[in-house]
Amino acid sequence: MEPGHPLEAAPESWTGVPGDHPFSVGNLPYGSAADGRGGAFVVVRIGDRALDLTRASAVAGPDLLPLFARGSLDDLLAAGAPKWTQARASVKSWLTDAAYRGALEPLLRPVAELDLLLPFAVADYADFYGNEHHAANASRIFRPDSTGVAPNWRHLPVGYHGCAGTVMVSGTPVRRPQGQYRDEDGTVAFGPSRRLDLEAEVGFVVGTGTAPGTSVPVGGFGAHVFGACLVNDWSARDIQMWESTPLGPFLGKSFGTSVSAWITPLEALNEAWIASPARDPAPLPHLDDSARPNGLDLALEVRLNGETIAAPSFGTMYWTPAQMLAHLTSGGAALRTGDLFASGTVSGPRREERGCLLEYTWNGAEPFTLADGSVRTYLEDGDEVVITATAPGLYGRIALGEVRGRVTPP
Amino acid sequence: MEPGHPLEAAPESWTGVPGDHPFSVGNLPYGSAADGRGGAFVVVRIGDRALDLTRASAVAGPDLLPLFARGSLDDLLAAGAPKWTQARASVKSWLTDAAYRGALEPLLRPVAELDLLLPFAVADYADFYGNEHHAANASRIFRPDSTGVAPNWRHLPVGYHGCAGTVMVSGTPVRRPQGQYRDEDGTVAFGPSRRLDLEAEVGFVVGTGTAPGTSVPVGGFGAHVFGACLVNDWSARDIQMWESTPLGPFLGKSFGTSVSAWITPLEALNEAWIASPARDPAPLPHLDDSARPNGLDLALEVRLNGETIAAPSFGTMYWTPAQMLAHLTSGGAALRTGDLFASGTVSGPRREERGCLLEYTWNGAEPFTLADGSVRTYLEDGDEVVITATAPGLYGRIALGEVRGRVTPP
Repeated sequence: MEPGHPLEAAPESWTGVPGDHPFSVGNLPYGSAADGRGGAFVVVRIGDRALDLTRASAVAGPDLLPLFARGSLDDLLAAGAPKWTQARASVKSWLTDAAYRGALEPLLRPVAELDLLLPFAVADYADFYGNEHHAANASRIFRPDSTGVAPNWRHLPVGYHGCAGTVMVSGTPVRRPQGQYRDEDGTVAFGPSRRLDLEAEVGFVVGTGTAPGTSVPVGGFGAHVFGACLVNDWSARDIQMWESTPLGPFLGKSFGTSVSAWITPLEALNEAWIASPARDPAPLPHLDDSARPNGLDLALEVRLNGETIAAPSFGTMYWTPAQMLAHLTSGGAALRTGDLFASGTVSGPRREERGCLLEYTWNGAEPFTLADGSVRTYLEDGDEVVITATAPGLYGRIALGEVRGRVTPP
Repeated sequence: MEPGHPLEAAPESWTGVPGDHPFSVGNLPYGSAADGRGGAFVVVRIGDRALDLTRASAVAGPDLLPLFARGSLDDLLAAGAPKWTQARASVKSWLTDAAYRGALEPLLRPVAELDLLLPFAVADYADFYGNEHHAANASRIFRPDSTGVAPNWRHLPVGYHGCAGTVMVSGTPVRRPQGQYRDEDGTVAFGPSRRLDLEAEVGFVVGTGTAPGTSVPVGGFGAHVFGACLVNDWSARDIQMWESTPLGPFLGKSFGTSVSAWITPLEALNEAWIASPARDPAPLPHLDDSARPNGLDLALEVRLNGETIAAPSFGTMYWTPAQMLAHLTSGGAALRTGDLFASGTVSGPRREERGCLLEYTWNGAEPFTLADGSVRTYLEDGDEVVITATAPGLYGRIALGEVRGRVTPP
């Protein structure tokens, strides 16, 4: 479907959730919730409630039960794109066809009552650096003698592998890490990070893997990527700055990476694709994404203690998600179900579009004041960060699942 | 047991393998073999044969069967150090007590007939850079204006996360990757790597994980690490050099990392611990490993097409494995069963101790000639690399499982 077409009228849902709700039947993100007995069940969100799909499928669509029986999204991810489409169509029909109301309404639970889990087993986690404003600002801050992005930056989506084992679900407290850093006077010390930062990113969850030695072309994105989530790639800037020469970020990131509890299926984002941005130089053929719109029109918001401090736009990313996946696999590295790759910090030309405090406060040189009068350079213990995003949907704007985390002392 | 004590007399084994065999009952590394029906069984190596532990435990020690039933080492790794000791003692008794011969001899299979698998599920893969000669040489080659290792290098074991999904078992062919690089004339191109390298490393396999927010002290190494293997961290130097600014190696490594089919339990290496090297400056307290010998006396050999080209010594590593683990967890990142961390290239002051071709040929500037008269700078298609290592053992020198791989065209 072409972007920019008129909104469709939403089918009525017996749940009462209207088509212009951010979690309407045009959205339907999936999650996983603890059942209190050591197990879990798959949920799909509709409005402020969630349907237990593990039980609903047993009632309404037993052919789908194998996708939901284990309670995580792993089997759904592995099932492949035709099954994703089938499952989504079935779930939508269950929520809009009044004939299902009697059987399924008892399986609706308020989202606020759910104990939401990390919804899939993260295989490998890769993090990109695909926003030009972020890359240029970080270059200037980390390497003051640099004039902008590195020479490779406009030729490939620069990225690195992170720690998959410390990816955690939204709401998990974020313990301030300890680590080694070098003070301005040259002293090398070990202690709690004093420059704890957030990074507002968008993540993409791989469903269908690849065989070793194969690569995914730019046009293969939809066949391999199941959906999207928000990512807060918490960063200890003092640790990161000291450790990163020459092999890149390591412990400055590995203490924790938060992701949404809800994974938005790519099909819910059909209306959000926009033209890929202009690039100079033109990408090499394997990264050429000009054949169709590969930009993704997501409007992010970063809130600190309830106050919006920045609103970066994902649509201005220099490198698109399809290019990131094509690059990631261009050397023949196999993809696995559950691989997660994130965009890198989403930023923009204006201060209020900067998706991390490194940029927002220029590494602490430009503090800011919150509504309660307190001043911040980096995050303080007790601070809570919430990242949200909306996108054009079939019936109105839809929301990605928020990613939330509060900083706790080391 | 103190290093350097006199050799013990080996107990006789009904297998006929003498105590001074590199795979004597003083070694007993574990592996996993395909059963030809889609399943696998756990094996322990004795001489040039291997005992099927999945079947042997059912006969000789049913209490151990749960550790071996699934056919990979995952359950053994997760069982924890006391179980590792118990299992090893049992296996040793099975192979030395003649009463077991009748039942177990039929379960011995020639190693050459086994289809050996990646013996455990790799959770996260981290790669260090802990050899001073390698770090200094790589600095000089990659950054000709540098005078040696980076300022952080003597303060912490520099490392990065690699791709866990492309770790593969010894013997798996290594496809030459394609990737993006910049030629000397400044042209940016995509094509098969022309600087494909090996890296001789030692890997350590985590058995017992940790809770988030905790760290493993230097003295906790043996409680968390199950054993050691050899690693060939294949590297495409042209891709790596172009991509690594500023976030480190990514696709120049992710196309494949080979590990031994055999994991040597730490207990087999009891005799191999040697004094930690002198450091300047002294490591910070959390990295202080001077309380006991934390160096590991492994003699590596790198063979190219059957010809030994280098013999690096692991005992000269600046950073010890216990320090690497302490550093890896110092920020509170949780360990998981199956985490693998590698040492970085093992190198030395002389050319014939350099564990990668980047150093050995000074990035191609100093080619070398093989016995067949052919000249190498980097690896050619068809080249086979074998890395082996031996260590002092209880009854004589023992061998780590080799890591072998042949380069195939892209």
